[in-house]
Amino acid sequence: MERIWTTEVAGQAGQPVRVQGWLHALRRMGGVSFVVVRDGWGLVQAVAEDDAALAPLREAGAGMESVIAVEGQAVTAPQAPGGVEIQQPRITVLVPVSEPPPVSLNKRELRAALATVLDHATVANRHPARRAVLRLAAGVMAGFREALAVRGFTEIQTPKIVAAATESGANVFAIDYFGRPAYLAQSPQFYKQIMVGVFERVFEVGPVFRAEPHDTTRHVNEYVSLDVEMGFIQDHTTVMALLREVLAGILARLEQQYAAELALLGAAKALPVVPPVIPAIHFHEAQELIFRRHGVDVRGEPDLSPQDERWLGAWAQEQHSTDFLFVTGYPMRKRPFYTHPDPARPEYSNSFDLLFRGTELVTGGQRLHRYDDYLAALAAAGLPAAPFASYLETFRHGMPPHGGFAIGSERLLMQLLGLPNVRLATTFPRDLNRLTP
Amino acid sequence: MERIWTTEVAGQAGQPVRVQGWLHALRRMGGVSFVVVRDGWGLVQAVAEDDAALAPLREAGAGMESVIAVEGQAVTAPQAPGGVEIQQPRITVLVPVSEPPPVSLNKRELRAALATVLDHATVANRHPARRAVLRLAAGVMAGFREALAVRGFTEIQTPKIVAAATESGANVFAIDYFGRPAYLAQSPQFYKQIMVGVFERVFEVGPVFRAEPHDTTRHVNEYVSLDVEMGFIQDHTTVMALLREVLAGILARLEQQYAAELALLGAAKALPVVPPVIPAIHFHEAQELIFRRHGVDVRGEPDLSPQDERWLGAWAQEQHSTDFLFVTGYPMRKRPFYTHPDPARPEYSNSFDLLFRGTELVTGGQRLHRYDDYLAALAAAGLPAAPFASYLETFRHGMPPHGGFAIGSERLLMQLLGLPNVRLATTFPRDLNRLTP
Repeated sequence: MERIWTTEVAGQAGQPVRVQGWLHALRRMGGVSFVVVRDGWGLVQAVAEDDAALAPLREAGAGMESVIAVEGQAVTAPQAPGGVEIQQPRITVLVPVSEPPPVSLNKRELRAALATVLDHATVANRHPARRAVLRLAAGVMAGFREALAVRGFTEIQTPKIVAAATESGANVFAIDYFGRPAYLAQSPQFYKQIMVGVFERVFEVGPVFRAEPHDTTRHVNEYVSLDVEMGFIQDHTTVMALLREVLAGILARLEQQYAAELALLGAAKALPVVPPVIPAIHFHEAQELIFRRHGVDVRGEPDLSPQDERWLGAWAQEQHSTDFLFVTGYPMRKRPFYTHPDPARPEYSNSFDLLFRGTELVTGGQRLHRYDDYLAALAAAGLPAAPFASYLETFRHGMPPHGGFAIGSERLLMQLLGLPNVRLATTFPRDLNRLTP
Repeated sequence: MERIWTTEVAGQAGQPVRVQGWLHALRRMGGVSFVVVRDGWGLVQAVAEDDAALAPLREAGAGMESVIAVEGQAVTAPQAPGGVEIQQPRITVLVPVSEPPPVSLNKRELRAALATVLDHATVANRHPARRAVLRLAAGVMAGFREALAVRGFTEIQTPKIVAAATESGANVFAIDYFGRPAYLAQSPQFYKQIMVGVFERVFEVGPVFRAEPHDTTRHVNEYVSLDVEMGFIQDHTTVMALLREVLAGILARLEQQYAAELALLGAAKALPVVPPVIPAIHFHEAQELIFRRHGVDVRGEPDLSPQDERWLGAWAQEQHSTDFLFVTGYPMRKRPFYTHPDPARPEYSNSFDLLFRGTELVTGGQRLHRYDDYLAALAAAGLPAAPFASYLETFRHGMPPHGGFAIGSERLLMQLLGLPNVRLATTFPRDLNRLTP
């Protein structure tokens, strides 16, 4: 008999069916046995009233995570998970497993220490709740790409092995490239700008590498960056409007195509609504506001602290009833050399951070586009021009006003789902101590 | 006036329009000037009968690649490229460029030495023919993902920094990971297998890194790998059938959505047709066939030579009228340790190569899925089990029969388009000598 997916059993009520998957759970209640099969998409329970139906499991010594096939009759059963069960099951053991899994996979929540979950991620990722998170990660990427493709953006893939650090010599992983020093790309920043000269509108989904020795709940050393860059912008506000559309696109995708995963995680109602226009506050005004409301004089500071961001998030919720707030115009001195200044107030930049529930979610802005401005900016930053020769060639040959943003894919997912640690939004995280699995 | 794309001008015939882009070409013929504007999507020509219209260019000293805006009247003009031109143009120079580009961008073909093209890829990629190739690369990725998504595959992103080499200690780039030795992933092979235990069907689009000191037209040291892995297969033939669908999906995507790029490259008619069933020949029979037809006794060789592959490609064309041929059952001794043997002839494997026009295009096969088989295979290969502990944990906890394949994205594009060098299918190639741009 042709195998069907567990998620298809409900549509076959009254018919004989065959499912394959892993032995997810086995429970006995009052002489009846419940055999739960997990395949790549869901779970289905088979109900055996005769203990003899379990004989193949016993004979093979097949415990949890054994690979099995179950044939039987699909029957509507309102009390069963998914509203359907398989009755009169005939079980075949394809690959028996006797050793119990390193973490229990068949409890509703994965109850194990974070280190245990991560050490055994190869198996722990099979837990339905873990799997739902990781499947949502695929949805984030798909929603991101789709929102951009319909707006004329072209996908690019740019080198991860680079000759020079993108923004500074710090925090890069060094590699030996056939005897020459090279580095892992901290971001595709330079390449996406270069490719604006080709396609005007580009995006990239790919790994970035940060050798930051941070051991926090928000940092990993390799993550998936969702990068966007576009040409012929007015200024950073064009980019902010695009970011709004991209976020709305990602959330719509999750809601439409990942309802089961969101429901399993209890996250469907927690997903934010992106307002038609995300409110924005200038950095300078944000500092004034904090001083007025909280009596803390942060004016003159070059950046916002996490506490400042939380206050601003609360203000956005109170004043605009939204989880989102743009802070614009960060001081130039804290932004990278390619940042475009505000023409009216050159000590401030045409940049922004997007705060989500009081925490930074996305950084972006307008970039310099004139060759002479780059030479001046590098000189002002005390950086030599030579390592940037290829990058600078782009600007010597005509570039329009342009800008973009980058979203850390795992961090976005962590924040949308309210996960306590970005590692839980990562398939196999890399951090200060963790290089496997 | 709102700016429109050059590709939208034809739809606005009779209306005033505004385009923005790069000054792509400027030609004078009999008192009439033709100003060609290139934006991110195409070209459009503006026709100035009055030399005064060019004054803004002269005054700004604006040569090729200057960023300009042109307003005027869109007029149907059958003799113009695209069937439309902009008359009575008013030109504004946004960013003047006086230095000529390092390679000429406005000739139909990019006539420059390969090294020059690659050294100046930041600008050379703007050439319409280069750009068409790179846009088709986006189409390959999109077609790949779509073909898999509709078949229930989940996209994954797996680490590129790994603790151990995937298949052997050779040809890996070493990195310093916070003082510990680590490597760049040669492939996502282990991770995609592990994730079959989670999603059953997975794919990944991402960079892979090969420290092979090859200096050929077919090798680069970083490339984009299109990886697939699926569970609950019958054997390698299940994977071959899937690969057929994926290739057909990619080609359909290119034909449907990239007609302009294919036409520009003169490649539309050259694209292959994927037959409903791709013919297959066993490795053993392939060697016998070569001996019979060409008198060269390659029987006993553990692999096919490029000449052998060309002969087989010619045979497939002659016997089956197709560009595609599967060769199955490569000897186990030339395949990696995780390869599943042919149960009937254990010296041969359940693996395949797909030849396209006589050259290897894709490699794939069935993998081992039983823990004990892995221990035996590692021992037979003389490999210690310890570095593979996480990978092996997957198989200790139940894995179904599974297999997959990997396509080098740039190599696929090179072969589909008949490009002479894989570097020309790569945005910014990395090779023995090239680390920039």
